Amino acid sequence: MRADRKKDFPLLRDNSIVYLDTAATSQKPECVLKAESEFYEKYNANPFRGIHELGEMATEKYEEARQTVQEFIHAKEPEEIVFVRNATEALNLVAYSLGSEILKPGDEILVSIMEHHSNLLPWQQAAKRTGAKVVYLECTQDGHFTEEAFQKAISDHTKIVAMTHVSNVLGCKNDLKTFAKIAHEHGAVFVADGAQSVPHMSVDVQDLDVDFLSFSGHKMFAPMGIGVLYGKRALLEKMPPFLCGGEMIDSVTREGAVWAEVPHKFEAGTVNAAGACALAEAIRYIEKIGFDTVEETESRLTKLAMEGMKQIHGVHVVGSPKAEDHHGIITFTLDGVHPHDVASILDADHIAVRAGHHCAQPLLKHLGISSATRLSLGIYNDEEDIHAFLKSLAEIRRQMGYAE
Amino acid sequence: MRADRKKDFPLLRDNSIVYLDTAATSQKPECVLKAESEFYEKYNANPFRGIHELGEMATEKYEEARQTVQEFIHAKEPEEIVFVRNATEALNLVAYSLGSEILKPGDEILVSIMEHHSNLLPWQQAAKRTGAKVVYLECTQDGHFTEEAFQKAISDHTKIVAMTHVSNVLGCKNDLKTFAKIAHEHGAVFVADGAQSVPHMSVDVQDLDVDFLSFSGHKMFAPMGIGVLYGKRALLEKMPPFLCGGEMIDSVTREGAVWAEVPHKFEAGTVNAAGACALAEAIRYIEKIGFDTVEETESRLTKLAMEGMKQIHGVHVVGSPKAEDHHGIITFTLDGVHPHDVASILDADHIAVRAGHHCAQPLLKHLGISSATRLSLGIYNDEEDIHAFLKSLAEIRRQMGYAE
Repeated sequence: MRADRKKDFPLLRDNSIVYLDTAATSQKPECVLKAESEFYEKYNANPFRGIHELGEMATEKYEEARQTVQEFIHAKEPEEIVFVRNATEALNLVAYSLGSEILKPGDEILVSIMEHHSNLLPWQQAAKRTGAKVVYLECTQDGHFTEEAFQKAISDHTKIVAMTHVSNVLGCKNDLKTFAKIAHEHGAVFVADGAQSVPHMSVDVQDLDVDFLSFSGHKMFAPMGIGVLYGKRALLEKMPPFLCGGEMIDSVTREGAVWAEVPHKFEAGTVNAAGACALAEAIRYIEKIGFDTVEETESRLTKLAMEGMKQIHGVHVVGSPKAEDHHGIITFTLDGVHPHDVASILDADHIAVRAGHHCAQPLLKHLGISSATRLSLGIYNDEEDIHAFLKSLAEIRRQMGYAE
Repeated sequence: MRADRKKDFPLLRDNSIVYLDTAATSQKPECVLKAESEFYEKYNANPFRGIHELGEMATEKYEEARQTVQEFIHAKEPEEIVFVRNATEALNLVAYSLGSEILKPGDEILVSIMEHHSNLLPWQQAAKRTGAKVVYLECTQDGHFTEEAFQKAISDHTKIVAMTHVSNVLGCKNDLKTFAKIAHEHGAVFVADGAQSVPHMSVDVQDLDVDFLSFSGHKMFAPMGIGVLYGKRALLEKMPPFLCGGEMIDSVTREGAVWAEVPHKFEAGTVNAAGACALAEAIRYIEKIGFDTVEETESRLTKLAMEGMKQIHGVHVVGSPKAEDHHGIITFTLDGVHPHDVASILDADHIAVRAGHHCAQPLLKHLGISSATRLSLGIYNDEEDIHAFLKSLAEIRRQMGYAE
């Protein structure tokens, strides 16, 4: 069954490609591209700066987008939404700013071994700058953190816990609510990476009670160059700014500056207002479809793919064997064929997947592999896409000269 | 004479606004908006990551854009072009990374008093982190740095000199070539802010021999969310990375990382490839017009505006009285009327200018004013715009109840 939803996406509509690389970046629906252009055609000015009609409209549109994001992730106040470039910048912001504020020699940062490099390297660097130490939280082979392991790894030296919501390799969803609660009992700040969860499921930051949550627009139908850092107001207020420049100050002298209020303190220089408006439109697009439909579709296709993959000789799925643990992300190896070759052969059939270390080298090493192939789903995928993928995958070993 | 060029810009074409706020952000021509959409419609994938056709096309388009920027500013190699979000981020990158590498207690950072906050606050912060000291280079009332003043301010303690190419308040152009030469004689690194020069005149980084140059796409017809840091390769290579995350590494372990080569070391996370392509299109748009035409148009209109302003009672232009020193930027005060009121009254006539401290509070204080109104020009402006501005400006004092 061909999903009608492909019609919303110019690249998929006008192209025979089977796009299974949404965890890297999503395709963009026409409405989002139009929303970005519309900003430039009707409201373009530098927000907060101009005392003119356009400047006021640009500011209004930008702040409306902030409110849309706030409501989408159920944050308490719009001021808790900081617009950044992408999830990577959001996490670096927290590691620099919060790190400089609260870390000292002897402190520990508990980082899950499942993290994307963007929620791992900033902590290694913060540790180097401050004399703190990175401690890793290990996961089981099927991508699970036990409460016991967490209790064992955390201590009263732990000042920060860094954990992804959904793993970009294993697809598993971590129980942030439970772990954030334990972290808070130890007085630690909980930093969650929502890059792979926010686009695919309803996320409620107040219910999860995480202190920070990062995500990227480009993985959820919005353009590149816009992302979000959610942070609890009390924490954002006590943190020093990260980038300095225009509009993040109240006043500047030769000696120093008085910073602006949150969130502006963290939004130095000209903001990406058009990107924020496009992200707001992407959220409206997702909400129109509804997360029930998103989850039902992606689960059904994940199950279809995993069942089919089980039938193909030499295929090994990384992480849990259960489809319901994968949230649209299936990473696998194929006996005797390098993941890059798997991806290249699939590409010859116009099937786009990703191969490599998936920016998670310590996790792959922990799992005993150096490289793997990943397919990842979006709401525009359909059964035909999965059938095409399975058909092509089934041929690979034969093409590489294996008897079976 | 109505410029035909307005037809290229949807917002100006479909609107009666007189837009005189280009130094804050420029309007966008249709070709740029189309170039950005085209990326998403034809080539959208995450560059460097996918072993698939789309991923390769996205990477190719992104690297082509880097080369376009390289050629535009006459850099020696494409690897010297780092894509960032905006000029502010570029300058923060240098202040954090180079600052942490070369500054120690007792060192001096020579910052021109003419700087936008984005080339001043990052240095104040770098000084605080490292124990170095910010020293200010003073300018004359008409916005001039003398060689004597520079020679007096610089010393062998000076490790970094920060200077704008064109002032966003005074419009004056600084002789970067001369000052960079003197800086180099003292072993200092020269960091130039090109935000107000690169969009309006041909800039040759090799001829100027600056070590770093920052600029923003959104001030030169490109979208928000894309900007450039030019840096000499040898310096970029010895600097530690700034933001950490995906694709800026060669390898990662639990203990640390081996960084990727420049420029990728400085481009953490998913890049704004569509923004880079749109910036490349903006460059092609500028080149099609030609800087001769840009400069001739903007000079002619600057002269027309300044001559008209001289006839209006109570108007005082900040900086040089000569039009040729203004490069399309005219900041002024009007006796007895607050700059915010000036801007508001102009806005009632659909004339968009900026009022305030222009993110340059120390400069304004140095000049003895706290706030001013600024008009700034772009290639889409024409004589009708200036006449409309002058007509409206001439009425303001009367409207505010002054006899003349």
